[in-house]
Amino acid sequence: MFFKFIKLAFAVVIFFSASLSAKESTEFEIRNTHTLKIKSEVSGLEYELYIRLPNDYSENNKKYPLVLLNDTGYSVAVASGIVHLMAGRDIEDVIIVGISYSKGHNPLLSRTRDYTPTYAPNEKRGHSLEVQKYSGKASQYISFISDEVFPLINQTYRIRQDKKIFVGHSYGGLLGANILITNSELFDYYILGSPSFWYDNKVMFRLESDFAKNNKAMKASVFMYIGSEEGSMVEEMLAFENQLKSRDYQGLSIQSKVLSGLTHHSAFAVLLTDGLQKAVPRQSKGS
Amino acid sequence: MFFKFIKLAFAVVIFFSASLSAKESTEFEIRNTHTLKIKSEVSGLEYELYIRLPNDYSENNKKYPLVLLNDTGYSVAVASGIVHLMAGRDIEDVIIVGISYSKGHNPLLSRTRDYTPTYAPNEKRGHSLEVQKYSGKASQYISFISDEVFPLINQTYRIRQDKKIFVGHSYGGLLGANILITNSELFDYYILGSPSFWYDNKVMFRLESDFAKNNKAMKASVFMYIGSEEGSMVEEMLAFENQLKSRDYQGLSIQSKVLSGLTHHSAFAVLLTDGLQKAVPRQSKGS
Repeated sequence: MFFKFIKLAFAVVIFFSASLSAKESTEFEIRNTHTLKIKSEVSGLEYELYIRLPNDYSENNKKYPLVLLNDTGYSVAVASGIVHLMAGRDIEDVIIVGISYSKGHNPLLSRTRDYTPTYAPNEKRGHSLEVQKYSGKASQYISFISDEVFPLINQTYRIRQDKKIFVGHSYGGLLGANILITNSELFDYYILGSPSFWYDNKVMFRLESDFAKNNKAMKASVFMYIGSEEGSMVEEMLAFENQLKSRDYQGLSIQSKVLSGLTHHSAFAVLLTDGLQKAVPRQSKGS
Repeated sequence: MFFKFIKLAFAVVIFFSASLSAKESTEFEIRNTHTLKIKSEVSGLEYELYIRLPNDYSENNKKYPLVLLNDTGYSVAVASGIVHLMAGRDIEDVIIVGISYSKGHNPLLSRTRDYTPTYAPNEKRGHSLEVQKYSGKASQYISFISDEVFPLINQTYRIRQDKKIFVGHSYGGLLGANILITNSELFDYYILGSPSFWYDNKVMFRLESDFAKNNKAMKASVFMYIGSEEGSMVEEMLAFENQLKSRDYQGLSIQSKVLSGLTHHSAFAVLLTDGLQKAVPRQSKGS
C-alpha cells in the first residue's frame, strides 16, 4: 500500500498555482477548475486531468459524486456550465474530472487509440485510415483510469465511491460500453451518448456476447441517448440496449432515449442535461 | 467619426497576451478565447468581454454571425462547447461575445441593475430587496451594448451585420424582451430562455403595450423557450408571445417552445442548442 503510494507520488506531478498575479493569459478560464498532470506508468503517455470542484467544496467536508469525462475539447466546458446552473437545484453538486487527449498527439489519434476496443486498421468510418493504425487500446486506457486516475483523484478529492458517473459521447460512448462489459463496477452510472456501435463491424455486440457466456451480473445504471437524425446509429443503439436487456443481468438497469430532431453533434448538451438529472437528481439520498 | 474612434481607443484597453510561457494558472482555459476590457463612458462601470473565435478565424477573411451572451458565469462555457461541436455541422460557425458582470460588484447586484427594465425596490421575487435598490438600469446597459460594445467588437472582429444573435436566460431573457421593444434592430435574432416576465408586476407587458401605440414594425426573429416545470412562468411566456403576435408587427417572426420535463436551470443548454439551430442553421445562405 505504502509502496503503491510512493509510486503514485512519482508518477504524477500536481500543479498548484503559487500566484495568479503573474498570469498573462487572457483566455477564458472556467471558475473552480484546475489541472493535474499525470503520466501513465503502463503506457508512458502523459495526460492532463481537468477538475471542476463545487463552489462550496472548501467550506465543508462532504463527499461528492464524480462525473468523469473524456473528449475534453468540448465536454468540460459544457459540463461545467450545466453543473453551475443545475447543481443544488436539479442535481446534486458533483466533482467533474476530464481526461485530456494524450499530450503531444493529434486528438483524433489519441481518441482512436484510447477509446476503441479493437485494432481495426481497415475501419473506413473512423477519422482516417492513418489514425486507425493506432486503434484498439481501450483496455490499456481503462486500466489507466482504474489503476492510475482513480487512485490519484480519490486521494486528492472527497469522492463518493457509490456515485461515480461515466460520461462518453460517440467513441466515448463506445468506450463506456466497453467499460461496462469489462469493468462494470468501475462506475455506478453510465451516460452514453450516440455510441459508435458501428465500429469494427459492430464488434461491441460480439464482445458483449462473449461476456454473457460467463457472466450473470452487471452492476450499473445505464442511460443511452442518440439523436433521431443519426441514421442507422439509432437502430444500432436500440439493438445494443435490447441485447443487454435480453441477458437479464443481475444489477443492470438500462434505459434509452431517442432525442427528437437532434444530430450526432447537437445531442451532447441535451443528453448530458438529461443524464445528470437521472444519475444524481437532487431528490436522491444526500451524502 | 475620427473623434469617436479616439474616444473609443481611450475607453477600452485591449489585452493581448505577449507570452503564454509565464502563465502560472492551472485553471481550465477554453481554447480560441480571449478577453477584452471595456469601461463604459456613460456609467463608469468596468466590464470584460469574453470572445470565442472560430477555429479557422485567422485562416480566412470571412465574416461571422455574432452570438452575444450575458450571465457569463455559465453561458460562455456552455455556448463554447456547443458551438465547438455544432459549428460547420449543424450551424454556421459564429463569434461568441460574452459580457461579464461589472467588475468589483456582486454578480446578483450587477445583473439586477443591468438586466431589469424598471426600478422596483419592493420586488420580492428578485435576488434580494438589497440588490433591488439598484434595479432598473437596463436602458443604460442597452446603450452600453449599442454605443460602446458593438463599436469595439465591430472594429476588432469580422462580424456579419445581418446575423447578430442575442441570447439571454431568466433576467437575461427579460433584458432581451426589453431590447426588442426599445432597440429591436440591435439584433436580428433573439433567443430568450425562461424570461422573467413576472418582474415588477409584469411590467414588460405594459411596456410592450406602450410601444405598440406608436409602432407598427419590429424587425426581428424571436425564439422563446421555457421549461415545462417552471410553473406560472410558462403561461406568462405564452401570454407575452400572444401579445406580440396580436400586434401583427411588420418584420416580426416569433415562435416559442415549452421544453418537456425541464426546469428553470436545466433548460438553458437545451434551448441554446435549439435556438442556434434555428438562428444560424448550416443550410442557410453562407457568408
